[in-house]
Amino acid sequence: MSAEVFSGLWSEIESIGRVSSGGYMRYALDTPDLVLRDWFRNQADRRDMPVTDDGNGNLFAWWGDAWGRDAVLTGSHFDSVPHGGGYDGPLGIVSGFLAVDQLRAAGHRPARPMAVVAFVEEEGGRFGLPCLGSRLLTGAIDPAKAAALTDREGVTFGEALGATPAGPLPGLTSRISALVELHIEQGRQLEVPVGVASAIWPHGRWRFDFTGHGDHAGTTRMADRRDPMLTFAYTVLAANKEARLAGAHATMARVEVEPNATNAIPSLVRGWLDARAADTATMDGVVDAVVKRATERAGRDGTEVAVTSESLSAEVTFDTELAARIAGMLGDAPILPTGAGHDAGVLSAQVPTAMLFVRNPTGISHSPAEHAEPDDCAAGVDALATVLRELT
Amino acid sequence: MSAEVFSGLWSEIESIGRVSSGGYMRYALDTPDLVLRDWFRNQADRRDMPVTDDGNGNLFAWWGDAWGRDAVLTGSHFDSVPHGGGYDGPLGIVSGFLAVDQLRAAGHRPARPMAVVAFVEEEGGRFGLPCLGSRLLTGAIDPAKAAALTDREGVTFGEALGATPAGPLPGLTSRISALVELHIEQGRQLEVPVGVASAIWPHGRWRFDFTGHGDHAGTTRMADRRDPMLTFAYTVLAANKEARLAGAHATMARVEVEPNATNAIPSLVRGWLDARAADTATMDGVVDAVVKRATERAGRDGTEVAVTSESLSAEVTFDTELAARIAGMLGDAPILPTGAGHDAGVLSAQVPTAMLFVRNPTGISHSPAEHAEPDDCAAGVDALATVLRELT
Repeated sequence: MSAEVFSGLWSEIESIGRVSSGGYMRYALDTPDLVLRDWFRNQADRRDMPVTDDGNGNLFAWWGDAWGRDAVLTGSHFDSVPHGGGYDGPLGIVSGFLAVDQLRAAGHRPARPMAVVAFVEEEGGRFGLPCLGSRLLTGAIDPAKAAALTDREGVTFGEALGATPAGPLPGLTSRISALVELHIEQGRQLEVPVGVASAIWPHGRWRFDFTGHGDHAGTTRMADRRDPMLTFAYTVLAANKEARLAGAHATMARVEVEPNATNAIPSLVRGWLDARAADTATMDGVVDAVVKRATERAGRDGTEVAVTSESLSAEVTFDTELAARIAGMLGDAPILPTGAGHDAGVLSAQVPTAMLFVRNPTGISHSPAEHAEPDDCAAGVDALATVLRELT
Repeated sequence: MSAEVFSGLWSEIESIGRVSSGGYMRYALDTPDLVLRDWFRNQADRRDMPVTDDGNGNLFAWWGDAWGRDAVLTGSHFDSVPHGGGYDGPLGIVSGFLAVDQLRAAGHRPARPMAVVAFVEEEGGRFGLPCLGSRLLTGAIDPAKAAALTDREGVTFGEALGATPAGPLPGLTSRISALVELHIEQGRQLEVPVGVASAIWPHGRWRFDFTGHGDHAGTTRMADRRDPMLTFAYTVLAANKEARLAGAHATMARVEVEPNATNAIPSLVRGWLDARAADTATMDGVVDAVVKRATERAGRDGTEVAVTSESLSAEVTFDTELAARIAGMLGDAPILPTGAGHDAGVLSAQVPTAMLFVRNPTGISHSPAEHAEPDDCAAGVDALATVLRELT
């Protein structure tokens, strides 16, 4: 495929949900995402691909019988982190449609159904739980619990969806024979246009509620303060240090303060810890150490800290045989692990799953500066078409 | 005055702008503040006190000729910090009306005009600059600059006011002979119901923009990060330490993060430093030390820090003679300094100004837990009526 053909379709969605930072504000089921979902239905219509909705917010555009046996799925998600890049997610969906075009132009006749899928709320940017759509599809989360998740304005996922989610698809494992998710690489490991995923690091999110004593910043003596911002700040630095010592990743990147006023000592500072490592024991060790240090510091600050686990994803090893077979189809493409979570990781617990990565020249992701070259994206479509042809 | 009479009028405004935290969200010229301003006009009407607006958003209810010579003003502000207490500000306005009632009931005939004033945007909670109304009235800020100040939604002060502010009142010093602001005490220094202010500590606000490199929290190696949250966290702890060493107050209580997502290393963390001390040299020394340590740390984190002075209030010494005279009128009331800024401090640069403090049993302010006993509030009204009677 030429870079021009790729760029032609890509340009249709490039401006949707883009804000002045140059990044994207594509929250699940919010306006830009709804526009993208309409675009998805239009693309499917243009290709005579009927669209089904699984009742969880995930969309499927079918080539062949919808939910016939042994379907091969490809796709990704539309939603972004706030001010995120445009490739993380949508690249897999656009590439899916372009791969269908390429296979049809070459006269391919799939022996089993194929679908392009758009998973809902992959980033957890709106309702706090990443891979919500794939978790619902596979039964990894209770539909009632998912329905009750709230966004920052208090809107629940059930309200945004317009219904209680339908939950797991009956007969999932016999209906899906493979999922191949194409995604922009999110590090600097890939030195050729396309690679194949081996594994996803285990990761989790923990909410730290630091509570103290709201008071006047001008009149309250330093010795009388119980300022939870101090405990939060110490914990941010402790998380960084513990991750470095363990060779893991730990980040506190989100914070909410009450009242968040310049002249008022906070009563509450809420911070989120994102931790990942090559294995679960290492990740748990980092989190335990951070909690211990936060608790000790709270004792010195006269504050309190309560820690809640908000999400936990076990280590994912993609289907080793499938990955090797795909690498072979692509002329010995490199096989590499990633620290990022994906819907494919959730599906991999039940069906054979693989991921293709497209080169990221800077390694930057979750940022407006995220970028992939059109030539590499076109190479990604070619690779995806090759894999889908072989699998169907 | 009886505590019952005080509580009767107080109860009329007690629920306005109160939220589930028990604190108040009274932002200048936003709905609860507009309701309170209507209440102010109604109270003035009930007492046949004509209301004038100075074109800056400050309201004046007159007993006697509006802006006749040598007026005596009393009053305070309606706006709160987010989730602040109900007494900080409104107590001075309610007490002003009740003092008028008491003087009229006693048959007092003022020899000069008297007004109850409601200053706009004292906390700086909406547009970022404290004492905005009194600064405009006295010419301490350029009206065009004030008009351009924005709130968190991008609304300017000029838009909220519906006009460019009128700026300083012509002939201010001949029109006002004194301002007496009654206010809840914001520390634990006062052990009797009413005291008199001696001075306000110098104070200022500085905005620290910590910039780094937005990136994926899962995939970016610790060694490759340029995470401004680390530099912010270090600066929070440094500010606390430097203030303790200097016997000053320093607080970082407000923070904004971009993108503020759990799985995205921030590109920007913006924190505000509030610093105060008994003298300007001490305050400046603390701020210089914090900036130096923040800059050093930014060098280690691969981030950058830019510091902007957003407001600066010099030390205020209230009119010493007036304070002594008022303390005498009130039977040797204690005279005490405060770390909190007030509109009276801004006015004091041009006209004789005094403050009465009403006892705060816990010392807590800028918090839902702020409280004053009705008996002490009633004693405050009595004291204010005594002072106004003597001054008019």
